[in-house]
Amino acid sequence: MTTRRPIRAVVLLSGGLDSTTCLAAALAAGREVHALSVDYGQRHRGELARARALARALGAASHRVVKVDLSAFGGSALTDAAIAVPKGRSARSMSRDIPVTYVPARNTVMLSLALAHAEVIGAEEIHVGVNAVDYSGYPDCRPEFLAAFEKLARVATKAGVGGRPLRIVAPLLRLSKAGIIELGTRLQVPYGRTQSCYDPVHGRACGRCDACQLRRKGFEAAGIPDPTPYARAAKRRT
Amino acid sequence: MTTRRPIRAVVLLSGGLDSTTCLAAALAAGREVHALSVDYGQRHRGELARARALARALGAASHRVVKVDLSAFGGSALTDAAIAVPKGRSARSMSRDIPVTYVPARNTVMLSLALAHAEVIGAEEIHVGVNAVDYSGYPDCRPEFLAAFEKLARVATKAGVGGRPLRIVAPLLRLSKAGIIELGTRLQVPYGRTQSCYDPVHGRACGRCDACQLRRKGFEAAGIPDPTPYARAAKRRT
Repeated sequence: MTTRRPIRAVVLLSGGLDSTTCLAAALAAGREVHALSVDYGQRHRGELARARALARALGAASHRVVKVDLSAFGGSALTDAAIAVPKGRSARSMSRDIPVTYVPARNTVMLSLALAHAEVIGAEEIHVGVNAVDYSGYPDCRPEFLAAFEKLARVATKAGVGGRPLRIVAPLLRLSKAGIIELGTRLQVPYGRTQSCYDPVHGRACGRCDACQLRRKGFEAAGIPDPTPYARAAKRRT
Repeated sequence: MTTRRPIRAVVLLSGGLDSTTCLAAALAAGREVHALSVDYGQRHRGELARARALARALGAASHRVVKVDLSAFGGSALTDAAIAVPKGRSARSMSRDIPVTYVPARNTVMLSLALAHAEVIGAEEIHVGVNAVDYSGYPDCRPEFLAAFEKLARVATKAGVGGRPLRIVAPLLRLSKAGIIELGTRLQVPYGRTQSCYDPVHGRACGRCDACQLRRKGFEAAGIPDPTPYARAAKRRT
């Protein structure tokens, strides 16, 4: 009988629908998962507590929160209280324009922090729930961004010099939101405990920001009941 | 008469000898400089106050400190109080081995933060005092690392999609420490106010860590008096 050490992976976990599905997929693939959440000054910080609970519930080997103050730069509705989160945008606008909820260089910063963590604990993979379909307006959600980061990671670290080359794994990259929800439902992801909303009302999803709209339509398209607790006043956009 | 807006640049400024020389070079080249210091939990945090004073004294248009808690990961003598800063290492060991003062993914994280800042303020360049000669043991001080980061930056941001491609400028990359000091001395850098030491003693340089040794030998090789205030007990390694 041979015993092989499981592949160690850092999974970026926001506590939202996508990253929680990504976490479940990494665990289902037999990875030893070290979840990492980034407190970047987001206004929807409730997601950090959810991330911690989800990492424990799903069986991550560890969970860590690292703080970086991206709000110091401003420039995004997610970190700057003076910029309103857009509500009720049309599907056309959502698919075409870079929204004010875009956080400058967010995925670059988050992957850099995951890289630091991976280097210290000797992880061979970084898993990230980046999606190029629904977030086509975000430059740092494109396949060429992830490929460029993987190349950078391989020259940036000690492991890149002498050890095994680090892999960036993005299992949701080319899935629709409905496809992600179908995958996660097979993996028994407790979606009612995840939070996607950019601008929650007393801890409940607003139902009208881009993230809520995408999530809602995803459940509809998958034909799976949406367990998200929405704020009372949230009306579906028709 | 034509008036052209000066090129806007983010300069990563630690307050040490290299980054302060880099700042002076950017200003001498006519850049509108927005200095950025990163508080990453380093034990030599006195450098942040020096960075602020140097940015003002040399004429940066702005200076900002962004906090990121790399000490959460541990793994380096610079952020983990339980790991001692090595003193009196041989030149051979310094040039060959990756030291425990290496901070995992530090330059990747710092450049990512500079990228976020550059994107928000519309900067076209990021200047960084990375040096491949004296820090040959650090993977993220190599030319191929900077080239990979520049490629990443061009696909990672809004500017990379529609605007001008961002440039990573590393004017010290192939200079010896003596060469850097000669350049800075021509540019009137107040080296007595910069701090390189990894482990200062009551605000004075220890004289024996890798950074102090490199700095000291640089002044000697350049034939320029070393204005660094060293701690009383520091003895030169022979």
